[in-house]
Amino acid sequence: MRPTPLVTAVPHPREPVRIPWLKTRLIGGTIFVSILIFDMVYGLDNIGSGTEKADTPSIAEQDSLLKRESGINSNSPMRLRMEALIKQHQKLIVQELEKLDGSKFRIDKWERPNGGGGISCVLQDGKVFEKAGVNTSIVYGNLPRQAIAKMRVNHKALDPDVDSLEFFAAGLSLVLHPHNPMAPTVHLNYRYFETANADGTSNAWWYGGGCDLTPCYLFDEDAIHFHKTIKEACDKHDKAYYPRFKNWCDKYFSNKHRGETRGVGGIFFDDLDETEKDQEQLFSFISDGLKAFLPSYMPIIEKRKDMPYGEKEKQWQQLRRGRYVEFNLVHDRGTSFGLNTPGSRVESILMSLPLTARWQYMHEPEKGSREERLLNVLKAPREWL
Amino acid sequence: MRPTPLVTAVPHPREPVRIPWLKTRLIGGTIFVSILIFDMVYGLDNIGSGTEKADTPSIAEQDSLLKRESGINSNSPMRLRMEALIKQHQKLIVQELEKLDGSKFRIDKWERPNGGGGISCVLQDGKVFEKAGVNTSIVYGNLPRQAIAKMRVNHKALDPDVDSLEFFAAGLSLVLHPHNPMAPTVHLNYRYFETANADGTSNAWWYGGGCDLTPCYLFDEDAIHFHKTIKEACDKHDKAYYPRFKNWCDKYFSNKHRGETRGVGGIFFDDLDETEKDQEQLFSFISDGLKAFLPSYMPIIEKRKDMPYGEKEKQWQQLRRGRYVEFNLVHDRGTSFGLNTPGSRVESILMSLPLTARWQYMHEPEKGSREERLLNVLKAPREWL
Repeated sequence: MRPTPLVTAVPHPREPVRIPWLKTRLIGGTIFVSILIFDMVYGLDNIGSGTEKADTPSIAEQDSLLKRESGINSNSPMRLRMEALIKQHQKLIVQELEKLDGSKFRIDKWERPNGGGGISCVLQDGKVFEKAGVNTSIVYGNLPRQAIAKMRVNHKALDPDVDSLEFFAAGLSLVLHPHNPMAPTVHLNYRYFETANADGTSNAWWYGGGCDLTPCYLFDEDAIHFHKTIKEACDKHDKAYYPRFKNWCDKYFSNKHRGETRGVGGIFFDDLDETEKDQEQLFSFISDGLKAFLPSYMPIIEKRKDMPYGEKEKQWQQLRRGRYVEFNLVHDRGTSFGLNTPGSRVESILMSLPLTARWQYMHEPEKGSREERLLNVLKAPREWL
Repeated sequence: MRPTPLVTAVPHPREPVRIPWLKTRLIGGTIFVSILIFDMVYGLDNIGSGTEKADTPSIAEQDSLLKRESGINSNSPMRLRMEALIKQHQKLIVQELEKLDGSKFRIDKWERPNGGGGISCVLQDGKVFEKAGVNTSIVYGNLPRQAIAKMRVNHKALDPDVDSLEFFAAGLSLVLHPHNPMAPTVHLNYRYFETANADGTSNAWWYGGGCDLTPCYLFDEDAIHFHKTIKEACDKHDKAYYPRFKNWCDKYFSNKHRGETRGVGGIFFDDLDETEKDQEQLFSFISDGLKAFLPSYMPIIEKRKDMPYGEKEKQWQQLRRGRYVEFNLVHDRGTSFGLNTPGSRVESILMSLPLTARWQYMHEPEKGSREERLLNVLKAPREWL
């Protein structure tokens, strides 16, 4: 897998993106949605070019030129450094997963007409993984005034007096569903969001992300290892991060309608900006979060992938897959927003769904069973460390 | 299956129901959501009793008394007649499906503490049906001022000058998923909604409902038979109903993110009130809609349930089941609203999901195949008659 071809500089539309759902969804004061969505949606700002300020090059054009002329190094704008970081980790993770599985990922690349693009790497029906997706996406677009006003709630640096702002979003998303019911599903997402001033300089920026584990059968040692590895990456940057982001994760990845978390958690955070730490420090934290992924998950999957199981365990896994689908389609703000946004790349968004799932009316695990034990933990999230 | 026990008259809370999502969801001016939800949500108005007007008996208490003293006949309030109608059809449909399948439904009854209750009939892993659910529910509750104001957009009879209004909702919902990929899934829902004045007389009322067919393999003759039977029921009441409600169905049951309808349609309508026809005429239309169900579907399932099929057809069915899940969890206003409402009976809401489903990245049916033919029809809904 090689980096995407350089984006060709094309006339950039100056009109704001029209996003019918944005208003409603932003009522809660969160800007989380926007990040996840721009992270996933393809073709959103392909709405023809405007006229005003058409002489100023867009940040997409500036970045494209910079990449061609100077390459990417530690002095490059954060946009380009983040793009390079996530593509580098995507490559590495895909390589390691291919080694483990013994199968090759299918790789789809696409470009956005006005700058940016994505790489979707999907492995389906492999030897270890039922379905595995590792996606990166880079989005250049324009934020309308209304969206800016909502985002200002969390980011005072945003200029409220402009009709629209160029933005940039880059993210790596990953979901791995193994065949073996003893081996847990894992999800990771790290992303960077930035708005630009008219002269192309950075206006507001923030990071979001996290990583969480979803077992069907609970091995305490796996949950402990996963949390421990992530905590170590957090602790290098701030001792308060792990407890704070662990709690945030338990709250976010929750099937509220069932009173269950999706899995045994990990970390989740959003809106980390200059009020938290400086950009360089946060970039370094994000880098360490990404670096921690393989060490956090690979020992677990290696230990579990060949464990014996029967039909009963497979059925339970299928029911838990159903819960995964419920979370992603009902509660995950990114997914439902993406699916309701015209022009989104549906196959990339739904890559996160398992290959197979099951819904059984009034299913209840046997008293004292391993299945019931998992449910009890999902109903009352534990401190693993 | 016998009718539910009579509802015991209990002190009725006069406080309006607090529904966090209602405001947002009603922005579109539709009151559809409310009906579907009250139709499915259990325990919503169980929020303790208020004080004002506690001397006036609630409509739940009045209805309970009426049932005990006079039974239900054509002079009874529409609330009681609708309750009797849907329970009678639930019983009949369950009997016929049990005969066809050779298996028994599991029957769960529940009562609402402040009036009303439900009967969920579910058949899982039968001989013909992978999963079949036939539910009725009766809800008595209070609508807050805000919800009244929104509903007034479609129903001028609603009094805007009160702080809350008692309401009543009754509905029959049915979803049948057969094992055989040649046999189509079918869905039906008929419902009645009413608000009451302080003296217990009827304030505003309306009906909604419909019935639609979702095949994995398209037999034109099945779609034609289904539509024809429904059209005949419609035509007895108004020649304009079928074309109007057929079109409404194609628009509503659409996986917009994929540009596909869920199936080959049927009819769908909402908000049919006194501006449409008088109550007696609409009740008669609803009754005929319910009566048309068995003749519209039974000949199809009898013809398809034992057709030969292979692994390939089963896989395609699983993918189509995935689309069914997508519609129900992402787009169906009732389902997602219900799941986001505290205290809802999740198992009744999700009874509509298939037992098993599948998501495959970038699946495309072969050119010229039967699978492709179905997709083409879902992308451009047809006139079947």
